Amino acid sequence: MAREIIFGEIKGISEGQWFEGRKEMMLTSFHRNWAAGIDGNGREGAAAIVLSGGYEDDLDEGDEIIYTGAGGNDQNTGKQIEDQTWDNRGNAGLLKSMNEGLPVRVIRGFNHKSAFSPKSGYTYAGLYSVVDAWEEKGKSGYKICRFRLEYCGQNPQRKTPEEIELDYKTRDKKRKSGTVLRIIRDTKIAHEIKKLYNYECQVCGNTIITKSGRYAEGAHIRPLGKPHDGADNSDNLICLCPNHHVMFDKGTFSILDNLSLIGCESGSLKINPKHKLNKSNLEYHRKSHGYY
Amino acid sequence: MAREIIFGEIKGISEGQWFEGRKEMMLTSFHRNWAAGIDGNGREGAAAIVLSGGYEDDLDEGDEIIYTGAGGNDQNTGKQIEDQTWDNRGNAGLLKSMNEGLPVRVIRGFNHKSAFSPKSGYTYAGLYSVVDAWEEKGKSGYKICRFRLEYCGQNPQRKTPEEIELDYKTRDKKRKSGTVLRIIRDTKIAHEIKKLYNYECQVCGNTIITKSGRYAEGAHIRPLGKPHDGADNSDNLICLCPNHHVMFDKGTFSILDNLSLIGCESGSLKINPKHKLNKSNLEYHRKSHGYY
Repeated sequence: MAREIIFGEIKGISEGQWFEGRKEMMLTSFHRNWAAGIDGNGREGAAAIVLSGGYEDDLDEGDEIIYTGAGGNDQNTGKQIEDQTWDNRGNAGLLKSMNEGLPVRVIRGFNHKSAFSPKSGYTYAGLYSVVDAWEEKGKSGYKICRFRLEYCGQNPQRKTPEEIELDYKTRDKKRKSGTVLRIIRDTKIAHEIKKLYNYECQVCGNTIITKSGRYAEGAHIRPLGKPHDGADNSDNLICLCPNHHVMFDKGTFSILDNLSLIGCESGSLKINPKHKLNKSNLEYHRKSHGYY
Repeated sequence: MAREIIFGEIKGISEGQWFEGRKEMMLTSFHRNWAAGIDGNGREGAAAIVLSGGYEDDLDEGDEIIYTGAGGNDQNTGKQIEDQTWDNRGNAGLLKSMNEGLPVRVIRGFNHKSAFSPKSGYTYAGLYSVVDAWEEKGKSGYKICRFRLEYCGQNPQRKTPEEIELDYKTRDKKRKSGTVLRIIRDTKIAHEIKKLYNYECQVCGNTIITKSGRYAEGAHIRPLGKPHDGADNSDNLICLCPNHHVMFDKGTFSILDNLSLIGCESGSLKINPKHKLNKSNLEYHRKSHGYY
């Protein structure tokens, strides 16, 4: 019987750990499906991948990896003989993990060509987030599915997701004058709140549909950072579409204690009975934006 | 006759420059209105501010400044005697600069209390962006208008806007596991494109209204960063509302060479005759998201 899929760290296996061979890793749920490279599926998400040097275009900068999906190659020769597809089990799993913010365990094999790869055996590179997916024509002439992954584990010696994203956005570019309009961070708590609302905006009820699933943003009622010092707790978070997130942050509307909307929106905030908001956070938002 | 307002750097005056007194600076358009502290108005924006130590709660971390607006105080004693308002000329100017992404020259006076202030005279701290505005009750019991500013000049020795924003968002917080969903950067070219469209989304025609004006985002058609390597040029930028920006980046819809929309949107991209898109960028976006 197949083992259950497990997301995140596996007890007893830590970042950087070396394994002599594949069998050693299959004893746990660390990576259950070596043949496919990607452990997972479109329904549950992908929990682990192996970098085993298949694609020349793959990029491995340590904290940032560009990975080619599965499928389309001849089982015997490994040669690409047809297009890869997004409904391939593994590719669909990585899309699901991207959309849901599920962490992916990354394993580097000896046959993977990068400065980070082991000379023999396998090493566990840590937890990564899937942050982008697109398709292109591979060197074979067939379509390939590609993913960008960023390190998102807890190792303080490594870069934070923000630092990786920042390097990515400014790489090969000279310093430019400009403003950061918005940085939106998806914490575990924000993810739970969004899931509770099935990614529907608590103001307009709309959800953003993408090919990899539904999208919404977790909005802090009392902002993080000085001088506001709001908390990253569920009683300080609501689920909004990007448009209403901008409007809320800028005070276009606010929320009364009875959840009526005031300002440029009418009606009430849709609320799940399991979700309790802290009224002092609502009051803080109102006062900050001049609603008395 | 009043001198014209000038945004950005003033010829002959460089970051860090010291001035003995106010008069020295008034010879140019560097800061035209010393009495008010803020040089500007709600119609044009604010071009310069002076930090002169008025408010105890003000924060000066060098690259990040929290600044209290103008008005409400007694001309003779300086004491707060009534509420500040957002339609005060200077405060309205800072809101306008925030909304339009206009840079503000920051000047520190000898009477401003911070590690960065001069012992006598005035120093030019460089160009800053206004990134947030809110109101609160000051120690006097009257309402004050407050602003957060971030350094946005070209000095490579200082932090980039992303680094400042990153520090701000993670300050006083332990490392957390999480993903950066989106970083939106407002470059000069993005600002021009948004202005050309009056902040109306080129897909839905909607604009986000905020108390400080209209809001939209500049979306790159061919993404920046590896492996896409798109350019930060007007022929690679469109003006979108945040919702359509997410949908476009995730491939929910794409754009044909004749500007018809395909995927989950119908109709055509609204285009200004002055705005020419590079068709190879449109093609790149289509191919990346499986529209052939």
